[in-house]
Amino acid sequence: MEEKVNVGIIGATGYAGVELLRLLLSHSKVKVAAISSKSYEGENIQDIYPNFREIFSSLLCDNDTVIDSSDIVFSSLPSGFSEPIARQCVDKGKKLIDLGADFRLKDEKDYKNWYNLEYNDKELHDDSVYSIPELHKDLLTGKSIIGNPGCYPTSICLGIAPILKNKLFDGDIIIDSKSGVTGAGRGLSITTHFPECNSNFSAYKISQHRHTPEIEQTLSNIAGKKINVTFVPHLIPINRGILSTIYVKLKKCSGLLDVYKIYVDFYSDCKFVRVLPVGSSASIKNVKYSNYCDVSLHLDKINNRLIICSAIDNTVKGAAGQAIQNMNLMLGFDEDEGLNLIPPAF
Amino acid sequence: MEEKVNVGIIGATGYAGVELLRLLLSHSKVKVAAISSKSYEGENIQDIYPNFREIFSSLLCDNDTVIDSSDIVFSSLPSGFSEPIARQCVDKGKKLIDLGADFRLKDEKDYKNWYNLEYNDKELHDDSVYSIPELHKDLLTGKSIIGNPGCYPTSICLGIAPILKNKLFDGDIIIDSKSGVTGAGRGLSITTHFPECNSNFSAYKISQHRHTPEIEQTLSNIAGKKINVTFVPHLIPINRGILSTIYVKLKKCSGLLDVYKIYVDFYSDCKFVRVLPVGSSASIKNVKYSNYCDVSLHLDKINNRLIICSAIDNTVKGAAGQAIQNMNLMLGFDEDEGLNLIPPAF
Amino acid sequence: MEEKVNVGIIGATGYAGVELLRLLLSHSKVKVAAISSKSYEGENIQDIYPNFREIFSSLLCDNDTVIDSSDIVFSSLPSGFSEPIARQCVDKGKKLIDLGADFRLKDEKDYKNWYNLEYNDKELHDDSVYSIPELHKDLLTGKSIIGNPGCYPTSICLGIAPILKNKLFDGDIIIDSKSGVTGAGRGLSITTHFPECNSNFSAYKISQHRHTPEIEQTLSNIAGKKINVTFVPHLIPINRGILSTIYVKLKKCSGLLDVYKIYVDFYSDCKFVRVLPVGSSASIKNVKYSNYCDVSLHLDKINNRLIICSAIDNTVKGAAGQAIQNMNLMLGFDEDEGLNLIPPAF
Amino acid sequence: MEEKVNVGIIGATGYAGVELLRLLLSHSKVKVAAISSKSYEGENIQDIYPNFREIFSSLLCDNDTVIDSSDIVFSSLPSGFSEPIARQCVDKGKKLIDLGADFRLKDEKDYKNWYNLEYNDKELHDDSVYSIPELHKDLLTGKSIIGNPGCYPTSICLGIAPILKNKLFDGDIIIDSKSGVTGAGRGLSITTHFPECNSNFSAYKISQHRHTPEIEQTLSNIAGKKINVTFVPHLIPINRGILSTIYVKLKKCSGLLDVYKIYVDFYSDCKFVRVLPVGSSASIKNVKYSNYCDVSLHLDKINNRLIICSAIDNTVKGAAGQAIQNMNLMLGFDEDEGLNLIPPAF
Repeated sequence: MEEKVNVGIIGATGYAGVELLRLLLSHSKVKVAAISSKSYEGENIQDIYPNFREIFSSLLCDNDTVIDSSDIVFSSLPSGFSEPIARQCVDKGKKLIDLGADFRLKDEKDYKNWYNLEYNDKELHDDSVYSIPELHKDLLTGKSIIGNPGCYPTSICLGIAPILKNKLFDGDIIIDSKSGVTGAGRGLSITTHFPECNSNFSAYKISQHRHTPEIEQTLSNIAGKKINVTFVPHLIPINRGILSTIYVKLKKCSGLLDVYKIYVDFYSDCKFVRVLPVGSSASIKNVKYSNYCDVSLHLDKINNRLIICSAIDNTVKGAAGQAIQNMNLMLGFDEDEGLNLIPPAF
Repeated sequence: MEEKVNVGIIGATGYAGVELLRLLLSHSKVKVAAISSKSYEGENIQDIYPNFREIFSSLLCDNDTVIDSSDIVFSSLPSGFSEPIARQCVDKGKKLIDLGADFRLKDEKDYKNWYNLEYNDKELHDDSVYSIPELHKDLLTGKSIIGNPGCYPTSICLGIAPILKNKLFDGDIIIDSKSGVTGAGRGLSITTHFPECNSNFSAYKISQHRHTPEIEQTLSNIAGKKINVTFVPHLIPINRGILSTIYVKLKKCSGLLDVYKIYVDFYSDCKFVRVLPVGSSASIKNVKYSNYCDVSLHLDKINNRLIICSAIDNTVKGAAGQAIQNMNLMLGFDEDEGLNLIPPAF
Repeated sequence: MEEKVNVGIIGATGYAGVELLRLLLSHSKVKVAAISSKSYEGENIQDIYPNFREIFSSLLCDNDTVIDSSDIVFSSLPSGFSEPIARQCVDKGKKLIDLGADFRLKDEKDYKNWYNLEYNDKELHDDSVYSIPELHKDLLTGKSIIGNPGCYPTSICLGIAPILKNKLFDGDIIIDSKSGVTGAGRGLSITTHFPECNSNFSAYKISQHRHTPEIEQTLSNIAGKKINVTFVPHLIPINRGILSTIYVKLKKCSGLLDVYKIYVDFYSDCKFVRVLPVGSSASIKNVKYSNYCDVSLHLDKINNRLIICSAIDNTVKGAAGQAIQNMNLMLGFDEDEGLNLIPPAF
Repeated sequence: MEEKVNVGIIGATGYAGVELLRLLLSHSKVKVAAISSKSYEGENIQDIYPNFREIFSSLLCDNDTVIDSSDIVFSSLPSGFSEPIARQCVDKGKKLIDLGADFRLKDEKDYKNWYNLEYNDKELHDDSVYSIPELHKDLLTGKSIIGNPGCYPTSICLGIAPILKNKLFDGDIIIDSKSGVTGAGRGLSITTHFPECNSNFSAYKISQHRHTPEIEQTLSNIAGKKINVTFVPHLIPINRGILSTIYVKLKKCSGLLDVYKIYVDFYSDCKFVRVLPVGSSASIKNVKYSNYCDVSLHLDKINNRLIICSAIDNTVKGAAGQAIQNMNLMLGFDEDEGLNLIPPAF
């Protein structure tokens, strides 16, 4: 019998962390060796999340124990906290997949501008790789630190990449994204207090969201030139899911079917991106609880503007699922190992 | 004691109709004389809508009875059904406020293109006026037919009007709107079946929604030139409310405060439009169950793009409330008579 | 012109307080003179609740200012905080309507057992009256302190009173109540964090809820003997409303129509209780945003058990609306002044 | 390589059918050979349920094709339609698991009374077995027709069984159940139209629900005497889940811990029933998307009444999951094959 890889989760009681735990427990090639939580250290995960009763019992330990017990460490912490974890991992020969923002931005200036933090251990950043697997899987080889992408950038970059790669666009890119409330995390706030959030809808951090430089970095790399975007996120009163509606002016009057073929071709090897047939519209319902990104294409003929709808589950493809997908690629497992999650119909 | 004006509602059991009924019952200067419903003729409104029990009892009659009993007729019917109603009203010296689409589009070609219907009684359309009161109130004098605006156009045109009026924009206008489910009406469909709709979010009728020509007509009139828009509506799993996020490129680098002042000035006489202080974001919660339109302004400096958020209750300012506002102006009542609805905090 | 009565709200930023503010602003015979908030003292209510923008502007002051500015003081504070407020009101000749629990329980032992607090100023409690107006309005005369009932007791006692009054029951009373999330207040907690609460349903404080002694006190008074109940509250993922399903064994085989007649008779003078026709089922939808209590009656013939469904809006009839109803009666206004709120259809 | 068992689904586009499809596609020992739908015959399941895109493609065929292609047939049809399907299965040597009501009631009189239908092929009913596996698994041997239980009865009988088995109760049983909207099926109705259902809560079919005789049949069998229950279902505005709150008078003053031990003992061999530690309360959130039934126990000491909360996912343990559990037992697979679904935290 094949030996399983030991994995650990730092920050296991946040929403990304706990979804990661759920998915890793069904992954046939890994064993969850240890989990940590600053807020709940010493408590059993079952007492925080009773959905795990009679399924998985483990005390929440400290971060050092997780690192020492694991071959692969997943870290799901607020900005600035993963860099020292990464140092420990590297020094101890462990691999780190960071679900936070510490290893996403290549240009430290962006990190300073948007997160008001610095890279204290610059060498680590040279050794790290940012990976939306469909766009960056070739870069994973030999790296020991993966910066797992943000949820909005995942939905957006997968939605736009083929257009940029094929230089079909002209002018500005406008991105109107809508996210379920788990995207705001488990920390309490009046905005996410049920009666304030339920039956409401509004935009927030308009053109000021921290995912902006990450989106622009990825898109610029694909386009081969500096791309600026207008990015406006909104909060939907649902638990899971992101829908990004993206507006791009086409360079010439391409027919929608031509664009569709370019997308199908671009994602031909990508199991987790489903380019929907022309006439369908991407919908959060069809990707919930799965690692899929559904992309649909629409044309405003009069204005020659392509409208792209891109839907993911923010906690799976936008966080935990994608982290596992990155791990699978890093370790040479099948890309979809542990991720064959069929989205439920309701 | 002043005599009350008799009003009637044709199509009183649809969502716009029943909201109209609720609001008219609290209007001090009118009396609901008769209500009709094709689907429920002969039944008591209380048996369809038990919220009216012990408050208002009335059998649903036929349309002719409503017209004969009323000085002012509100019609809330599917496209094509209000034109003959209007003929009857005009012939009998009654005034009609149509909440449907029959009297919204000035150019019959638009009506043909988008609704696949014709104007059979063209004279009526010359006698009618389309009115978002804040933009068109001067046109109401002497008219006997009012085309009450659609919900999306109301939120959108109020959001953009000051920019167009002051010629501050350059280039394209992109409108990403999100509506609660009452916007889809009371007719059953799989899309609005609870388990399909709840926890979901998606766009629909992308750049094909029938409100597009109405938006363009109003904006073109204000701008004094043909305006095209890219308009994408989405469905939010809530009952009430529309939030439109509007993207406009500014002609020159105006500061946000300058734009704000232009908006405040533009709406200085408009009780129902609240221009939010810079830094606030319009939110459905704050206008629900009221006739307010909240407008907030945001600047993406790098791209010199103005982002406008405009929030209304689709069934009040987007339908029944605005119809009453139009009636008030037509009859010389205070504009806010019966519309002093304070939005609840939750 | 008649002079308005000055009213003030202590604790105006809690959910009951802010709903009270909304309703009082539309009450024709009172003027909101001052509002206070411990958490937000010095801030404008509009900055906490932007729904009031351009409608009502007032700084949140301290409690003393409210008392000094008002003829009638509404207090909406956690247990134990209203007693000293009441002392000040009495000494200054003001009347107090307390929306908290300090003046609900006649027997101090109950208060000690369930709230772990004592009555420090016993004289005040002799001068106070507990009032669900439909059951206690005769007791209001000459009192200067009203203990406004809890939300669950209101829905439950109105549902059972006619049965107890007419001695139709035999044996135990089981009450299964379900409340919207505003019932838990505006204070943040993991239970009311949107992603934990949404799509969930569960019971809480099973047979341990503090409203139990209040329910038993009221029912015992009506029955003329000690009544014990089994009371289990549940949380529904909606904002507003309580539905209580009440199970009572009938003494003899009464027909449902007989029971119905007893209820209709019992509530013949009560505008705000609607006894639904046999065959209808009380529903939160039909009372939301109104002061109505809908009561429906159902019979399990085989077990000779009466099932009563009672629906209210917890923040109106269950709190702010009922407080105003009590004020109206206390001041000799029409009982429904400011409370003619038609429940919206959706 | 072991050969897989061919399974088929009749009525695959209803909510139980489509959830069954999702779960069977992840079951390692079966192959979905054919699926049928009357409403959508000839269409691809992906066009009805786009969540299956790029996962499972199959035309919806007729029922005969399903029967001929399958070793095990799952039928999910309205009452009265499965009996002839069962005849065909028996004649062709296939096994049938019926998710409808045709094989649940042993006494034809109950079927006539509650469903207004007859058993036309009585022999079939003698050969069939009704099975909540935790209570009836010993009866499955050698049967070729399984009547899969209703969702409410599953949650209720698992909640009460240990009490009845151990003769701890005295007097009446009152069951107050609450279900998510998928329980009402995919058929359109005004009750389940989003704006009517959302933010609402009410009881329905009070003491008249068709699951009543099924509950009483199962409980009577366990108790060894005729048991009557008062059963009131309610609709919660969520997609999935049932919470049943059950009220039972205890015969003698048992301590809660004693009762807890009896439950733990009763379910010691039952993987899918989790008896929660005293102090916890069963919650829909913790069983959603899984085959678990969570049972929590509470005592109203003053009235010596046991309160049992029982939570399931109505579409899994209440329908599709339990059907697979029955199939597993019938075929000698591990009971949890294909059912190791960890409930997500949100």
